[in-house]
Amino acid sequence: MQGSIIDELKESFRVLPGVGPKTAQRMVLHLLQRDRHGGRLLGQKLLEAMERVGQCRMCRNLSESNLCAVCESAHRDRSQLCIVESPVDVVAIEQSASYRGCYFVLMGNLSPIEGIGPEELGMDALAHRCEDDVREVILALSASVEGEATAHYISELLKTSKVQVTRIARGIPIGGELEYVDGNTLALALSGRKPL
Amino acid sequence: MQGSIIDELKESFRVLPGVGPKTAQRMVLHLLQRDRHGGRLLGQKLLEAMERVGQCRMCRNLSESNLCAVCESAHRDRSQLCIVESPVDVVAIEQSASYRGCYFVLMGNLSPIEGIGPEELGMDALAHRCEDDVREVILALSASVEGEATAHYISELLKTSKVQVTRIARGIPIGGELEYVDGNTLALALSGRKPL
Repeated sequence: MQGSIIDELKESFRVLPGVGPKTAQRMVLHLLQRDRHGGRLLGQKLLEAMERVGQCRMCRNLSESNLCAVCESAHRDRSQLCIVESPVDVVAIEQSASYRGCYFVLMGNLSPIEGIGPEELGMDALAHRCEDDVREVILALSASVEGEATAHYISELLKTSKVQVTRIARGIPIGGELEYVDGNTLALALSGRKPL
Repeated sequence: MQGSIIDELKESFRVLPGVGPKTAQRMVLHLLQRDRHGGRLLGQKLLEAMERVGQCRMCRNLSESNLCAVCESAHRDRSQLCIVESPVDVVAIEQSASYRGCYFVLMGNLSPIEGIGPEELGMDALAHRCEDDVREVILALSASVEGEATAHYISELLKTSKVQVTRIARGIPIGGELEYVDGNTLALALSGRKPL
């Protein structure tokens, strides 16, 4: 009963994470029945963004220009370099408003199975960058096996340099009730205790 | 740290039903990092669909052409007219492969509060259509207050015509365990019992 464009649009929505056939259908019908203007705008912005967004040549973060806003800013501390896996991590840290240094976005973790090696993560560029004015490299990676492997690789990579490598603290999250914190985290929190 | 296009795209994704700021961000970063081709295609299809999809002049369903595939088909029974609220209902009934008649899509329900009256639902067109070769009008509307009101309006509208008005059956769904069926449905199912 429905023409091919509607079906094609439904199919196209499936590229989005977490969108199955039912959700795709709901999205398509919502836009067609109630928000054509929003749909048109979304289409335009998508084309624009896919075309114009590239990577910052300093930190590898997604950026419209050659240099992202952080790398370009004169107010950021260039001696601190926070290593994260993905642009979302940069957003999260920026929202916490607790960091004034710069970033380096790996865009992934070491994963031989998926064919992601040091080259794909820009380790050369990272080592090169650390030859300049960087004094501290802060590892803010996932507490997963891949994250650990990547952290280990980076600390080995920078062993001979004068850069200090640190890692963000692990322990119980604020507001976390002890009873619901998993055992590994609790063990880490205990062993990493600090004098009050 | 991120340019305005990325933020604008995130904002544009919020027009989709069920998409909040976090989901929008995940969608944008997924497309930018992993599936630019899919993102570009989605953008194109969106613009195309918003431009080209209109309504079938016979049944009011969404359609690219003047007549939708069902209304145009020579294999559908024009003496049966199934009244539904929305294009998704047509999809659902078509998927059940149990109906060979035609449809009439109200695109809503009577709702004075939202300013939806008989005119918005195309009741004139419906009455006009029933003057032709329609013998049975099957109401397949929601079992809500608005759905009931709409069903009542249509049965009044067609009272003087020779058209028979029926309503799809209500009862316990297949696979439904009695224990989990709500009381109203159970009461309807009991009062509507049939000899085996």
